Amino acid sequence: MFQIIFLLSLFLSISNASVQDFCVADLKGSDTPSGFPCKSATTVTVEDFAYSGLIEPANVTNIINAAVTPAFVAQFPGLNGLGLSAARLDLGPAGVIPLHSHPGASELLIVTQGHITAGFVSSANTVYIKTLKKGELMVFPQGLLHFQATAGKRNAVAFPVFSSASPGLQILDFALFASNFSTPLIAKTTFLDPVLIKKLKSVLGGSG
Amino acid sequence: MFQIIFLLSLFLSISNASVQDFCVADLKGSDTPSGFPCKSATTVTVEDFAYSGLIEPANVTNIINAAVTPAFVAQFPGLNGLGLSAARLDLGPAGVIPLHSHPGASELLIVTQGHITAGFVSSANTVYIKTLKKGELMVFPQGLLHFQATAGKRNAVAFPVFSSASPGLQILDFALFASNFSTPLIAKTTFLDPVLIKKLKSVLGGSG
Amino acid sequence: MFQIIFLLSLFLSISNASVQDFCVADLKGSDTPSGFPCKSATTVTVEDFAYSGLIEPANVTNIINAAVTPAFVAQFPGLNGLGLSAARLDLGPAGVIPLHSHPGASELLIVTQGHITAGFVSSANTVYIKTLKKGELMVFPQGLLHFQATAGKRNAVAFPVFSSASPGLQILDFALFASNFSTPLIAKTTFLDPVLIKKLKSVLGGSG
Amino acid sequence: MFQIIFLLSLFLSISNASVQDFCVADLKGSDTPSGFPCKSATTVTVEDFAYSGLIEPANVTNIINAAVTPAFVAQFPGLNGLGLSAARLDLGPAGVIPLHSHPGASELLIVTQGHITAGFVSSANTVYIKTLKKGELMVFPQGLLHFQATAGKRNAVAFPVFSSASPGLQILDFALFASNFSTPLIAKTTFLDPVLIKKLKSVLGGSG
Amino acid sequence: MFQIIFLLSLFLSISNASVQDFCVADLKGSDTPSGFPCKSATTVTVEDFAYSGLIEPANVTNIINAAVTPAFVAQFPGLNGLGLSAARLDLGPAGVIPLHSHPGASELLIVTQGHITAGFVSSANTVYIKTLKKGELMVFPQGLLHFQATAGKRNAVAFPVFSSASPGLQILDFALFASNFSTPLIAKTTFLDPVLIKKLKSVLGGSG
Amino acid sequence: MFQIIFLLSLFLSISNASVQDFCVADLKGSDTPSGFPCKSATTVTVEDFAYSGLIEPANVTNIINAAVTPAFVAQFPGLNGLGLSAARLDLGPAGVIPLHSHPGASELLIVTQGHITAGFVSSANTVYIKTLKKGELMVFPQGLLHFQATAGKRNAVAFPVFSSASPGLQILDFALFASNFSTPLIAKTTFLDPVLIKKLKSVLGGSG
Repeated sequence: MFQIIFLLSLFLSISNASVQDFCVADLKGSDTPSGFPCKSATTVTVEDFAYSGLIEPANVTNIINAAVTPAFVAQFPGLNGLGLSAARLDLGPAGVIPLHSHPGASELLIVTQGHITAGFVSSANTVYIKTLKKGELMVFPQGLLHFQATAGKRNAVAFPVFSSASPGLQILDFALFASNFSTPLIAKTTFLDPVLIKKLKSVLGGSG
Repeated sequence: MFQIIFLLSLFLSISNASVQDFCVADLKGSDTPSGFPCKSATTVTVEDFAYSGLIEPANVTNIINAAVTPAFVAQFPGLNGLGLSAARLDLGPAGVIPLHSHPGASELLIVTQGHITAGFVSSANTVYIKTLKKGELMVFPQGLLHFQATAGKRNAVAFPVFSSASPGLQILDFALFASNFSTPLIAKTTFLDPVLIKKLKSVLGGSG
Repeated sequence: MFQIIFLLSLFLSISNASVQDFCVADLKGSDTPSGFPCKSATTVTVEDFAYSGLIEPANVTNIINAAVTPAFVAQFPGLNGLGLSAARLDLGPAGVIPLHSHPGASELLIVTQGHITAGFVSSANTVYIKTLKKGELMVFPQGLLHFQATAGKRNAVAFPVFSSASPGLQILDFALFASNFSTPLIAKTTFLDPVLIKKLKSVLGGSG
Repeated sequence: MFQIIFLLSLFLSISNASVQDFCVADLKGSDTPSGFPCKSATTVTVEDFAYSGLIEPANVTNIINAAVTPAFVAQFPGLNGLGLSAARLDLGPAGVIPLHSHPGASELLIVTQGHITAGFVSSANTVYIKTLKKGELMVFPQGLLHFQATAGKRNAVAFPVFSSASPGLQILDFALFASNFSTPLIAKTTFLDPVLIKKLKSVLGGSG
Repeated sequence: MFQIIFLLSLFLSISNASVQDFCVADLKGSDTPSGFPCKSATTVTVEDFAYSGLIEPANVTNIINAAVTPAFVAQFPGLNGLGLSAARLDLGPAGVIPLHSHPGASELLIVTQGHITAGFVSSANTVYIKTLKKGELMVFPQGLLHFQATAGKRNAVAFPVFSSASPGLQILDFALFASNFSTPLIAKTTFLDPVLIKKLKSVLGGSG
Repeated sequence: MFQIIFLLSLFLSISNASVQDFCVADLKGSDTPSGFPCKSATTVTVEDFAYSGLIEPANVTNIINAAVTPAFVAQFPGLNGLGLSAARLDLGPAGVIPLHSHPGASELLIVTQGHITAGFVSSANTVYIKTLKKGELMVFPQGLLHFQATAGKRNAVAFPVFSSASPGLQILDFALFASNFSTPLIAKTTFLDPVLIKKLKSVLGGSG
């Protein structure tokens, strides 16, 4: 009994030294370049380290017959500072995740249902494309344009994971045609036809 | 036509500037603290960025009724330098991935089949445990002891992903009982009973 | 004199401890995720730390009336491992650097002659555009699409600098229309019109 | 005199540019993944950069005949953001720092008194053990299980230093037997005998 | 129209996932080791990403016939977290930026007018010096003493850029002679003559 | 027995996945920005992780009555890639480690014998000085000029540790007076008197 008391006093003094083997995001605090401030350790529970938002398939009855559901730090605060995040891709029979990039992370795609054709374009303008089946992986290096599309006629599901808790997502069509990027400037900087640009803006809701 | 030539010359001069938006591992080269040397870009193909080694369930007719199949840089060279890797966990009805840690990475677990009870112990000796179902995620901060075990009676599958191409894996039982760690030193540094240590060493193949 | 000998022996023993306050690239060695192997310190001269390749204006009599001349690690080996590189932009009266991104670095643009309209699109699809004059700076966060174009009718010059010795450069038009990205897949993943895609491919030299 | 004024005005304008060659922790602020917010530079004194808490030997009349006294950022705010911390190990004649790991840092041990047997287990389950004397160093790579114990019969002292201001400390026995980790789950994930687990829990104060 | 609504709902849900492709500094918040907290994205404008403070030549009618004008994060909040900053050097005909170092960044110097002799001293006490003309670059590795001086008789201008938003600046003469560093301690730690030290202190305003 | 075989096959397959929880330097290989290539794991022994070169006091019968003995990666290959190194300072009764900086690391000083007066100068030209006794610590942020000197009349010993395996060491007097830095350029960039410069060069062995 005597020993227990001594040992526990050691235990307590050492545990005071323990800071930050995790830093669950306090999303009400201001973000910083390294992530959000940490929630007080005394209020952290196991629920902070688990996330249920990717269980259900998303609705894919939309123009791309697909959906991306993120589990980034903004949704899953336990990821803060750990250099990891994930998402769920649901792809209907004609599904496509349009050409996009993640400015802040590389991506590793894990196919868990169906077949998916995925690809990316390198800085050297080489296109790397492969059709993946359930259980296959493909990696997309940081910042490069890539896409995923259903291969075959069945629904497909995949979990992309990212090397940052906050990978970002820039979808090419939205950057151009769902933004306030003016038609003349888009035309000038992409060589696309202004008539086409205006048509896509009208579909995607862009202005300018 | 004249313009094309000018533009292509621009294209070529710029592409010379492109180094290293990826660095596929040349596994025959010597590893460095940042990863393996890069394979020549001219020999890189899409197969370097994809991995098929996690498609098939592993055999789980073993003592832990479970298996871990890694897709780290040593198996999947395209991950080199990208700060990501993955593995596949196969868990039979009584499966357990014994207590272990990854010295070089945080882990994000994605459950894709069945139910899994997973947990980790923090530096403050708090245990965070949760039973996860298909589609749920759980994160294990870098370097902390954690485990996964089948919940319920059905097989389970999960894909853990890591914040490093080379996360490492230290399994507690193997570190103690499948190594050349001497019984007296284990006893001295863990307070475990020498008789028990010797018994587990005989099961797990340790010496000393 | 006696003291000098003692001190020099100190000097020599300490200088043996000095490794790597620089690591000039040995470009014949294999690149790694952190950069090239270091050239032997005994062969390093001041010329390794200086670069003259951006002195002269580049020829801008081409389709974009502009040119990008890189001073990345592949051109300027002294930058290896230092997290910095530069380039020179020459823009004729109608010059435009088409929409592009740097997958591996943020960019800080320094205008040194004329007027330049520059802009980028954020992940939230907001466009930030400004016309800059000589001496003004603009920053483009890593991985986001951006452009530069001559404002007014005079030639312009700028020096973009990057937060990596190897920032990469993905030009949108080249990724799409000067690559082997197939027309049907481009159409599917961008919603662009196949006829337009084929036309731009014929101009820019793409296949598929 | 005229020159002084000019020069001082230069001095003042330049000193405004000086931010953050240090960032002494404001421990009342919220921690972030990169460390604590910085205390106002105007209130920083030399006492923020020095620490006296490791001068005195700690009491080692306890079950392990040893003590660890940390000088991490929580104790020594000047370390914030600098990637370094330290501790003091006091070991009595039968002293042992039980098997533990630092999830957030590598450790370099400097022996300053007596003899210490130290060792770690690699991911490949190889044990590296050595008896060190005064002035000898040993390094323990990040996240791996290691221990220190008195060699011989005299007291020993060592200063471990760490590659993070907040290295963390997970002591195996405390993680298992001084926590709320349930006996059946420990048994299942370690193959240890439940009777032994319960016995150690009763000594170390664990529940479950 | 129906499709637009679906797509926009996708757009909105995805944009919620977008955090931190930039983090404009809220300079009123407390700095952290990774930089300042981020300004709310809704208040960010293009002016946060541009900086006009380096347009005008600085007054060089001072003792060094030169001036350094910084564009670090404290002046240009859009640089926060992006690993880049810049400055403007104005050098009169006899201008010199005295020996100094940047503790937190490497420097890449871009000469834009006139001729500048620049150099640095390595850890191995080798001096690398070169006279640069307009358009030439020179790199100074992090933390090493370096200088810039006008070469020839004409004014010169250069833009140094840095691998950190907050590179720091330690000017040797100011550290020694414009500080409260006591004359005896300076003499003891530099071997400089106390009479000279006192004389330079009187010119530069140091105390002690 | 059957189980053992199964388990060992698991063990072996998993251990193949283990790469790089350490990377002992192969000093014959070329250094890279992240460190040396790794020695083959099969040739690594415990001697790679330990270092005996700091056991003995160094000879301090020299001009500074002091000596610095480094244990950087070049001396202690096990430190490679681990972000840590150390040195030993021996100070005689009048010992002084002259003003110097480490371009690549912050320093934490641990005094183990005697009394030492240490200090550094910040970018804001504030001097932080303190006399430390045995067991006290002081931290010197990266890249800033600092010194250590014996306080009192007894020998002193300290172990500085660094946040890099290769911290570098730039001694001010050696950079100026033991190098090929020409007297006129030193005078121009430091305001020191040419006569004094020449005198110190003659003592310290500099040329130019």
